[in-house]
Amino acid sequence: MSQPVADKALEAQPLSADDVRAFNRWWHAANYLSVGQIYLMGNPLLREPLRLEHTKPRLLGHWGTTPGLNFVYLHLNRIIRARDTDVIFIAGPGHGAPGVVASTYLEGTYTEYFPEITQDESGIGKLFKQFSFPRGIPSHAAATTPGSIHEGGELGYSLSHAYGAALDNPDLVVGCVIGDGEAETGPLATSWHSNKFLDPRHDGAVLPILHLNGYKIANPTVLARIPQPELAALLRGYGYEPLFVEGHEPDVMHQKMAAAMDVAFDRIASIQKAAREDGDTTRPTWPMIVLRSPKGWTGPKTVDGLRTEGYWRAHQVPFSDLTAPGHLQLLEEWLRSYHPEDLFDQEGRLHADIAALAPTGARRMSDNPHTNGGILKRPLNLPDFQDYAVAVEAPGRTIGEATRVLGTYLRDVMKNSEKHRNFRVLAPDENNSNRLNAVLDATPRAWEAETVDYDDHLGEGGRVMEILSEHTCQGWLEGYLLTGRHGFLSCYEAFIHIVDSMVNQHAKWLKTAKEVPWRRPIASLNYLLTSHVWRQDHNGFSHQDPGFIDHVLNKKADVTRVYLPPDANTLLWVADHCLRSYDRINVIVAGKQPELQWLDMDAAIKHCEQGIGIWEWASNDKESEPDVVIACAGDVPTVEALAAVKLLREHVPDLKVRFINVVDLLTLQSKQQHPHGLEDATFDALFTTDKPVIFAYHGYPQLIHKLIYKRSNSRNFHVHGFREEGSTTTPFDMVVRNNLDRFHIVSNVIKHVPGLQSRAAYAQQAINDKLIDHVTFITKHGRDLPEIEDWRWS
Amino acid sequence: MSQPVADKALEAQPLSADDVRAFNRWWHAANYLSVGQIYLMGNPLLREPLRLEHTKPRLLGHWGTTPGLNFVYLHLNRIIRARDTDVIFIAGPGHGAPGVVASTYLEGTYTEYFPEITQDESGIGKLFKQFSFPRGIPSHAAATTPGSIHEGGELGYSLSHAYGAALDNPDLVVGCVIGDGEAETGPLATSWHSNKFLDPRHDGAVLPILHLNGYKIANPTVLARIPQPELAALLRGYGYEPLFVEGHEPDVMHQKMAAAMDVAFDRIASIQKAAREDGDTTRPTWPMIVLRSPKGWTGPKTVDGLRTEGYWRAHQVPFSDLTAPGHLQLLEEWLRSYHPEDLFDQEGRLHADIAALAPTGARRMSDNPHTNGGILKRPLNLPDFQDYAVAVEAPGRTIGEATRVLGTYLRDVMKNSEKHRNFRVLAPDENNSNRLNAVLDATPRAWEAETVDYDDHLGEGGRVMEILSEHTCQGWLEGYLLTGRHGFLSCYEAFIHIVDSMVNQHAKWLKTAKEVPWRRPIASLNYLLTSHVWRQDHNGFSHQDPGFIDHVLNKKADVTRVYLPPDANTLLWVADHCLRSYDRINVIVAGKQPELQWLDMDAAIKHCEQGIGIWEWASNDKESEPDVVIACAGDVPTVEALAAVKLLREHVPDLKVRFINVVDLLTLQSKQQHPHGLEDATFDALFTTDKPVIFAYHGYPQLIHKLIYKRSNSRNFHVHGFREEGSTTTPFDMVVRNNLDRFHIVSNVIKHVPGLQSRAAYAQQAINDKLIDHVTFITKHGRDLPEIEDWRWS
Repeated sequence: MSQPVADKALEAQPLSADDVRAFNRWWHAANYLSVGQIYLMGNPLLREPLRLEHTKPRLLGHWGTTPGLNFVYLHLNRIIRARDTDVIFIAGPGHGAPGVVASTYLEGTYTEYFPEITQDESGIGKLFKQFSFPRGIPSHAAATTPGSIHEGGELGYSLSHAYGAALDNPDLVVGCVIGDGEAETGPLATSWHSNKFLDPRHDGAVLPILHLNGYKIANPTVLARIPQPELAALLRGYGYEPLFVEGHEPDVMHQKMAAAMDVAFDRIASIQKAAREDGDTTRPTWPMIVLRSPKGWTGPKTVDGLRTEGYWRAHQVPFSDLTAPGHLQLLEEWLRSYHPEDLFDQEGRLHADIAALAPTGARRMSDNPHTNGGILKRPLNLPDFQDYAVAVEAPGRTIGEATRVLGTYLRDVMKNSEKHRNFRVLAPDENNSNRLNAVLDATPRAWEAETVDYDDHLGEGGRVMEILSEHTCQGWLEGYLLTGRHGFLSCYEAFIHIVDSMVNQHAKWLKTAKEVPWRRPIASLNYLLTSHVWRQDHNGFSHQDPGFIDHVLNKKADVTRVYLPPDANTLLWVADHCLRSYDRINVIVAGKQPELQWLDMDAAIKHCEQGIGIWEWASNDKESEPDVVIACAGDVPTVEALAAVKLLREHVPDLKVRFINVVDLLTLQSKQQHPHGLEDATFDALFTTDKPVIFAYHGYPQLIHKLIYKRSNSRNFHVHGFREEGSTTTPFDMVVRNNLDRFHIVSNVIKHVPGLQSRAAYAQQAINDKLIDHVTFITKHGRDLPEIEDWRWS
Repeated sequence: MSQPVADKALEAQPLSADDVRAFNRWWHAANYLSVGQIYLMGNPLLREPLRLEHTKPRLLGHWGTTPGLNFVYLHLNRIIRARDTDVIFIAGPGHGAPGVVASTYLEGTYTEYFPEITQDESGIGKLFKQFSFPRGIPSHAAATTPGSIHEGGELGYSLSHAYGAALDNPDLVVGCVIGDGEAETGPLATSWHSNKFLDPRHDGAVLPILHLNGYKIANPTVLARIPQPELAALLRGYGYEPLFVEGHEPDVMHQKMAAAMDVAFDRIASIQKAAREDGDTTRPTWPMIVLRSPKGWTGPKTVDGLRTEGYWRAHQVPFSDLTAPGHLQLLEEWLRSYHPEDLFDQEGRLHADIAALAPTGARRMSDNPHTNGGILKRPLNLPDFQDYAVAVEAPGRTIGEATRVLGTYLRDVMKNSEKHRNFRVLAPDENNSNRLNAVLDATPRAWEAETVDYDDHLGEGGRVMEILSEHTCQGWLEGYLLTGRHGFLSCYEAFIHIVDSMVNQHAKWLKTAKEVPWRRPIASLNYLLTSHVWRQDHNGFSHQDPGFIDHVLNKKADVTRVYLPPDANTLLWVADHCLRSYDRINVIVAGKQPELQWLDMDAAIKHCEQGIGIWEWASNDKESEPDVVIACAGDVPTVEALAAVKLLREHVPDLKVRFINVVDLLTLQSKQQHPHGLEDATFDALFTTDKPVIFAYHGYPQLIHKLIYKRSNSRNFHVHGFREEGSTTTPFDMVVRNNLDRFHIVSNVIKHVPGLQSRAAYAQQAINDKLIDHVTFITKHGRDLPEIEDWRWS
């Protein structure tokens, strides 16, 4: 761990007196525009004395973090101009939009993207009014904000987003402001370790700027209330060289920040040179900045005699009731303290000397193409998925491992993307456990921490990302996608719930981004959920939860897709399909264990293109109405449903059974609710309008009822699925305990087909006996009955 | 930050040669029993040569972490005996049950709880066979494991659980082993900061033991691959004094660990003395131990020529195929390396000299009553909630703030629990934002970091816990409840999804614990979700998500409850009810904003006891069938539904409307599915079997369809709720954008009541006009129409 002493360089005074003056002018303009957005809906440049009707009826927005964001933004601009460097800006602190929007307006970008927000008094008036105003813009750096890839409404993900953006972007520096509130979250606390996965040769750099303004909504922050040496130790322990910029006097702080930025960017340049030109492969100690400045810096020191600047009271709107004595005057004084008349000309245009501090064109952080990743996105050069097909001579005769097959396909996606380095595979330490090992033949795992000579597929430049943090994997991937690349994340099904809330936020971003005309589509967020509920018999109850499907289906229908391919060839089709899609969240659920294979590639393609269909070879209702429909979704349910069909053929051969398999779960929902939903007539033709439907489903059974409640035949659906009964047991016992097994399915057919109960009494007895045999056998021998383990369809 | 140099003390050799010999014997016994559990189902003491049929057909379990856990357990036992100290053990590493179960068996506890697992060869045989065997015990320290409060199936929560257990338990030390895999998770990474919230006067101590065994499933761990000074800096930065115990030679390691334990417990004692006797209020630097030992320590060095001990191959079962050449012999050699014949006597009883190393009775970590918290649980001394009632002279005339009222009640719950200190209120920096400020009149916020003289309700001994980490709050609360205390967690509704997966695990624990006869009920996990979707118009789309209800309803019906009290008095009833309940997860959703009040206390009690009911004063269908049922659940939906009723009265006075409000959401589900479900006859009597039901629901509308799909009238339900349309706007515009507003409800009534469309054409036109007025007004004035803001029922 090299520990360069930067103290001397931090004492440099890089700015001339003119620079400092100019910097203050920009900062005042940004702060003025920020306060204006929070408070004003008229008289934007204070051309007349402030009156109550100039202020908004509901005051919203967060002043506390804003002056700090404006300060950092300005100093990053200095670096961009001085070094002609590619930098983007991530605002971690929540509700920081007044600052980010103000800065992008000063750069002219905001007007370019929203021409009605002109560079004059009228435009400033609109800029102010729209902020946190009904049907206006939100208080976060949302998809509507130029230059943003990070909304920050939910805290914790700024740094993992920043690292995701920097991966495979060697010329990019991501400036990432982390609030000291956000720094308390778990996802943020572990994402500091991303520096062990960033390759200085192939990846860009992240410059974390920890902003200690001391307070959250109503509490001090932890990191602002530990001694500086302890904080420095923590950050060094995370592997960074912290550069402290602390104080409150603007002129001094400008010098300090400029010096720190110079040190940081010099250090980044020398790290990259060492790695790229001198072949230095030791993990560098990347620089970072700690900015300690007052909350609500430059705002009112006190309000009604109560401490405000530098205190939690400055967190949101420092004072809200403008009818209270003195408040309107206080606001006017505060606004005038920035001297708007010196910042904007008679028309309300920013003075040229201030405007000149912005970089130009795409160098502006607000117009950097990386922040509208769809612009840079190249389609993946995908191999033909059919080349990876497993041979299926007849349904249900041979065994295959679906995800292992998928691994060979992903290996070649990885190979084909070597030139553009625009594809990554991610997993929380589960890539091999999920049997995607083959991808490691194409690229090692990214790893910059210490190595030993017997390490296994670890190395620089690797594009498989593994850290035991679902949050970090998810954050990296989001940052990578949002900057125009592609990815694939595999995860144990139960533990994907760890990122439920991140998925919410990404879904919301996608929904909003689609409504923003200048945002271009990005690659979809692709999940493979494997090691799923039905084959976690060995890992036990804690590893059994199929509820992520339920979770994503609450999001907008336009965004979410759920696929349950029953075998390897269907999985290949689905993966290829998902990797070609954009602006979606695709959830693929597929097992990693050896399972029976059903469809050859031609049949798989046909079936997947429909998303749902009758398997004729498993049905015997030709040219007539069936007595019962047996349907299934998911690999294990498909096995059990087919085994049930076979039992019925044996016991009640004249029973007419129609067999339906569902790959694309959303076909079940009505067309009005989801674009993939079947038309009612098609649905009715498949499921009939009055026959019993026994449905074997991978997840929580009530989800199926929720999807089909509008269908004519909904009341005749009887769904088997996970009933939250699980433990350490055998694979077959898992389905038995949840009534998803072949025997319970047959029993339910017998129960619901009119007249069958008496005819099938003998079959029912045989089934009951089998279940007793099953329990006896597994508790004695510790494995499933051979007739279950060796069961074949044909 | 005091930084005591413990190096000297760490070089002490506290153990005699006899001690070391004895310690090795215990450790060998524990390791032997661990390997036996993983591999054997016969010949448990190797009384005959090992044959294939003695081994299990499916080999499961995690050897890698186990010898380390056994080592730590043994050394904690030494401390307990030497100092007669109260210690419990938390095994963070996943799948550590072979070790934990082995240790508890050696202590005799396992046999006391499971008498069939006798202290002889037959008992050891059963102990071995049941492990990870069908319908046996899981591979985690689950609820079935004596002495466990932490299953560890999902990683990340060991340390927050440990801190939760230590709060308000001044005499307890929680030994918490943290795996280096788990240490990469976000929740764990931030939970180190819990030491800023632990009061050495009123709380016990946590001794974190970071176990660096170097590998996860298939990857090295980050913390094992950074230089020791960097790791030490990180841990010092977290505020701990790390004591390093590194190596692999058992005799040396026993001495090192004994010395480190002595230093740690001395340091804990001196910290507690300083705080309790000398009034030292500076935050102490708590000790912790870093144990660096080989993965799969004492297991096979190589398997088939491949590195195994000290490598990822030792993570799970080091070799699985016992039919492979040499493997059975390798297993036998490995087992015999522990010399079982010297550890167990002829009957298979542990030799007395080894057994003597265990503490006795309740001092055994496996029998410590804190780990079966129901034993220690005292009911809260609850004030009479009726004393906090808000006056409601007539429905819908006065405004109240439900959560602020609740705060006054919780304040007195807090006061009443001062003596026993068995109640805490938690929130992720949102206690005041959620308007529970009054609790701070009874106790300050816990805070041990730096203070300044203008701090606000921060202090030692405080029982309000706030850190900006939902994970940490949840983990603290779980640890607190599991050790027999009570709590209440408030959270912004959208962000409770951050702990979705933690809730899953707690629900699974509760379900399993209920099936364990000796586990006693613990207090329920109580959530108040406020700052909810309908009043996040100011914070925007990222803050709008009512899906947590959907999430918890996938868990066992016996565990989950969801309450949507429409006003302050109903909220008081619900809170009181939840605080009296046990073994549940109670979700209460209630707004913090000023809203109309409906029920006086008597009416509230009556309504809440039913959970659902007709509000006669809002209905006009007396002594006849209604034309339409208007139902609602949630505070904002109740306002809109009642406003719709009032509009209907005005426009179509002869329309017979029945008005139903739902407080207990699960009354809607069928009785077979949930114990709170109404009988079908009762449900039909309320909702009719054929009339249209227009339902205004707080969350995602399809949830209602999912709950009622079995009901006779299900097809006539038309549900309004959150459709994932949201932004920064006005409160009323939020409901308008999602069609939950009064006007859309009325339109839907008009649409679905036969014959009404023609009669109500004029009303429909008036409504359409109103919606246009609404948009015009809000976009001009930035607030809702006065007739909306000032709307009253009566």
